[in-house]
Amino acid sequence: MAVYTQVSTEALEAFLQLFPVGTLVSAKGIAEGVENSNYLVETDSGRFILTLYEKRVKREDLPFFLGLMRHLAERDLPVPLPIANAAGDTLHELAGRPACLIEFLTGVSVTAPLSEHCQAVGAALARMHKATADFAMTRSNDLSLDGWRRLAAACRTQADDIAPGLRGQIDAALADLGARWPAGLPTGAIHADLFPDNVLFLDHTVSGLIDFYFACTDMLAYDLAVCLNAWCFSADGHDYHADLAAALIAGYESVRPLTDAERAALPLLCQGAALRFLLTRAYDWLNTPAGALVTRKDPLAYARRLAFYTGQARA
Amino acid sequence: MAVYTQVSTEALEAFLQLFPVGTLVSAKGIAEGVENSNYLVETDSGRFILTLYEKRVKREDLPFFLGLMRHLAERDLPVPLPIANAAGDTLHELAGRPACLIEFLTGVSVTAPLSEHCQAVGAALARMHKATADFAMTRSNDLSLDGWRRLAAACRTQADDIAPGLRGQIDAALADLGARWPAGLPTGAIHADLFPDNVLFLDHTVSGLIDFYFACTDMLAYDLAVCLNAWCFSADGHDYHADLAAALIAGYESVRPLTDAERAALPLLCQGAALRFLLTRAYDWLNTPAGALVTRKDPLAYARRLAFYTGQARA
Repeated sequence: MAVYTQVSTEALEAFLQLFPVGTLVSAKGIAEGVENSNYLVETDSGRFILTLYEKRVKREDLPFFLGLMRHLAERDLPVPLPIANAAGDTLHELAGRPACLIEFLTGVSVTAPLSEHCQAVGAALARMHKATADFAMTRSNDLSLDGWRRLAAACRTQADDIAPGLRGQIDAALADLGARWPAGLPTGAIHADLFPDNVLFLDHTVSGLIDFYFACTDMLAYDLAVCLNAWCFSADGHDYHADLAAALIAGYESVRPLTDAERAALPLLCQGAALRFLLTRAYDWLNTPAGALVTRKDPLAYARRLAFYTGQARA
Repeated sequence: MAVYTQVSTEALEAFLQLFPVGTLVSAKGIAEGVENSNYLVETDSGRFILTLYEKRVKREDLPFFLGLMRHLAERDLPVPLPIANAAGDTLHELAGRPACLIEFLTGVSVTAPLSEHCQAVGAALARMHKATADFAMTRSNDLSLDGWRRLAAACRTQADDIAPGLRGQIDAALADLGARWPAGLPTGAIHADLFPDNVLFLDHTVSGLIDFYFACTDMLAYDLAVCLNAWCFSADGHDYHADLAAALIAGYESVRPLTDAERAALPLLCQGAALRFLLTRAYDWLNTPAGALVTRKDPLAYARRLAFYTGQARA
């Protein structure tokens, strides 16, 4: 959540000449998203987000992310359009980094979602899933079962330093999910990280779905499970809000009804989604140096969600 | 250069109700200025900078800074206007910090100024000095001779760790300036930190003078000296650009001609201004923990400027 790569006004003015976007009038480094550098750029023709991709995003994944954003924006989803140059390219280089100029969308994120927000985000997610039916590119989910096993192995010896019993909880969940993880459900391009800070609202209408840098090809209902965990618990994971979950699912089904198999698999998918964020947070917790620019997120907030689904009690 | 204090959308919406600014439509944390937290806030009536003042700015100084900005904005200087509530107050509190909502100004900072930029900033500085003639508030410059002596004492034992000979250079400059520092020159409210990143341009016109958090009451020509150091050397201090200095002074004098005494004192004032930034940078260099959010600025870039004025050779 910081600007890692500084871009001078002069370099930015030269970069903008690649695009039909007019003359620079303002540029501010913004603290946003995953570990990328972002600038809010204004020209005499509009506003844009300039993103420089830092080490966490793999260059070879960028065509999928940008292609998906473009696909959705062109189908009137509230997704920021990557701006193409005259040759149609959206991926460029600036200050030694892969870089992209992306449409700016207004709207604000909520930190304490209400039922209306959950209903709206469920519906937007389902619209996104329907719109990706004809999206041809694929990217495997490197944060599904195999990825969880790798992360669990990397955290195993230190997990109990975060909280006593965490290692046992992770191992038990991994064994259970390995044995029962669903197959044969409808798949497609999913967002896979649609937390409240990645959804913009104007009033209670979704005005933006942003930050597609975990998007991949996986079960559509898994995307809904990620949202149920992210939107329908208190941030610390202590409290489950059944009314918000009902609103989120109702919103989703108002656009794309779940199949019986998806509905039956939802608790298991939620368990998997809880383990996914528990593991990445635990890994970051154990591997983030003191004083780093990134705020560490509490793994236990997701250990509690996981325990909710498996019926265990945890502090 | 980061966002230290997080403000939720809900808290921001409540805060904005203090002001006649309409409904929130966007908010982005921006990486800008000294150690404050800043948000670029958009409502349906306009754009604003929300600043939360962190530890480096003293609360008791804020009325001077905000009063000066208001005074200048009301006199059509390109200075952002602090937004007042119905009672006329501009200083508020948000998330446990002193906070102010300030007009947003478009424009971009240059990193490699041209003569036109220097001419324009000189003229803008002089307009600012003329406009403060009837500004009644005062704030002593805590980064003048007494402040330099304190900083030099705090850095003395470690100064040569930065570069061999730096301690001797500081002591010699301090003795010289202590003996010869001018008195009796015209004084008033000065910006005292008008570096290129604190000036916004649209084309070659100054559209914004920002970041008044070092403003104080001191010799007007000292403000010009700060600018000469900041605008008319290469960033590393190796190269002095006489053409830029001539343009800056000509721009200034096109609005406010210097007195003979000011012109005679200018080299000494430049020497003092060089020592001031050498000392604060040396202090920060020696006292910034590894991994801190702030990028340390090179003290030697100002040691070289100081050497330029005193005729010494330095690497």
